[in-house]
Amino acid sequence: MSELARRSGPVSRVRVAEHDTTGEHPREDVVAAEEPLEIRIAWPGSPAQRAWVTMRTPGHDFELAAGWVVHEGLVPVGALAAVAYCTDIDLAPEQEFNVVTVTASGPVDLEHRHAGLSSGSSACGVCGKDSIDAALTTVRGPRWQGPPPSAELVRRLPALLREAQDVFGRTGGVHAAGLFSADGEPYVVREDVGRHNAVDKVTGARVLAGEPPAAAYLVVSGRAGFELVQKAVAAGVGSLVSVGAPTSLAVHLAREAGVGLFGFTRSERTVRYS
Amino acid sequence: MSELARRSGPVSRVRVAEHDTTGEHPREDVVAAEEPLEIRIAWPGSPAQRAWVTMRTPGHDFELAAGWVVHEGLVPVGALAAVAYCTDIDLAPEQEFNVVTVTASGPVDLEHRHAGLSSGSSACGVCGKDSIDAALTTVRGPRWQGPPPSAELVRRLPALLREAQDVFGRTGGVHAAGLFSADGEPYVVREDVGRHNAVDKVTGARVLAGEPPAAAYLVVSGRAGFELVQKAVAAGVGSLVSVGAPTSLAVHLAREAGVGLFGFTRSERTVRYS
Repeated sequence: MSELARRSGPVSRVRVAEHDTTGEHPREDVVAAEEPLEIRIAWPGSPAQRAWVTMRTPGHDFELAAGWVVHEGLVPVGALAAVAYCTDIDLAPEQEFNVVTVTASGPVDLEHRHAGLSSGSSACGVCGKDSIDAALTTVRGPRWQGPPPSAELVRRLPALLREAQDVFGRTGGVHAAGLFSADGEPYVVREDVGRHNAVDKVTGARVLAGEPPAAAYLVVSGRAGFELVQKAVAAGVGSLVSVGAPTSLAVHLAREAGVGLFGFTRSERTVRYS
Repeated sequence: MSELARRSGPVSRVRVAEHDTTGEHPREDVVAAEEPLEIRIAWPGSPAQRAWVTMRTPGHDFELAAGWVVHEGLVPVGALAAVAYCTDIDLAPEQEFNVVTVTASGPVDLEHRHAGLSSGSSACGVCGKDSIDAALTTVRGPRWQGPPPSAELVRRLPALLREAQDVFGRTGGVHAAGLFSADGEPYVVREDVGRHNAVDKVTGARVLAGEPPAAAYLVVSGRAGFELVQKAVAAGVGSLVSVGAPTSLAVHLAREAGVGLFGFTRSERTVRYS
């Protein structure tokens, strides 16, 4: 499942004008690339079906697709048969590397998982609860069986994440996510303009390498919203460590699922919410 | 279109344990509330149809729904007839204030706009481009006709946004968006755990007050991704001012649509990308 050469890189160069107290200064700037990615899912006897479109930073696209289908519970880890760019005569050349097909070894129930999120199909009063329930549905991965989290190590993890980031991520335009062992060793670190995408890429990288997506710590550079905790639960990680604030629903789910949740994490302190 | 009393407030109190170099300190913490909101759209002769589910901070729900349908181009400003919580016997009590119905005075083409984002309905090779095109489709509002942006004022806008934020927003857990006049006067400022929701609430607040959603500056507390520029273009604002980094596609769209785009904005400097 090697990835083809991509048309777009993770960054793009643009001419800008910097304004400060002394006036205007034209220069070149580097911005994080953002492009749409369509994820399709195929299985024996079924052509590829569209499942999702996300805006993402090009690169590690197969990992993003694999991680997303695992987090959504659409394709179990053991049923991932192939991931490939879509070779489709209808695709414009510039979209050729913006469509990825995940092939499963068995049937996939796309309708069930996403029934609530498709539009225009049901009347008020009939299916009202379905879509909210779908948004709240969390896939439960295997529960982490390793040692409990160490607050001392947790406080060091954001710095360890930054050390492992690529240069382009240090420019401030992208989010990072990293999976770490109970000793603080990084397994994999990925970056993206979208926080959720970075987490999908981390899980996908592990799964495509034949490694388990669970580990002691999943570290994210931003805030910890509900959907990030959902992914942590689906991947089966021990604790989600964030640099920013968690939300009420994130705290609720983390406590209920038995996942550790740390917010406002700096070298000198962290706040444990779960 | 007055809003009913809500079950949930914008914040939630939780017991936490703060860890620092001296040990563990239990205390109470305030986190931003996050709950699902389902937006439905109804029009004469049609029952309400589900259109979208988003995770949002409760409060200003009608504004969020109104702003979203305007930004998506589903309901023109002049065709917004009513916004109300859904009174639905099938809804569990705890979801009663998590479903909002927008009623339009004329027919709404839900299928066309969202065809590409619904799932499981088309084979690879047939509709491949549709969903990516749908994600990239930007509604074009009236182009801003006021004075060109002032870099001196732009540098002051993030501080003016923070001054106008509610106390809970200063705790670090939420994003803010504000609409400002060419003189730096705030028209409306809204907060949410989601950056996109905060912008939807700003536009919705203006529209529901019978005011135009366009003004000289739309200021956001985070980064400027493609979808935020899409909303700025749909609302017809003159310039989008962000505290963080823009993405490549955000720069591209802003330039093409003739919307000013400023990133990394501080009191001492800003970078103009468009």
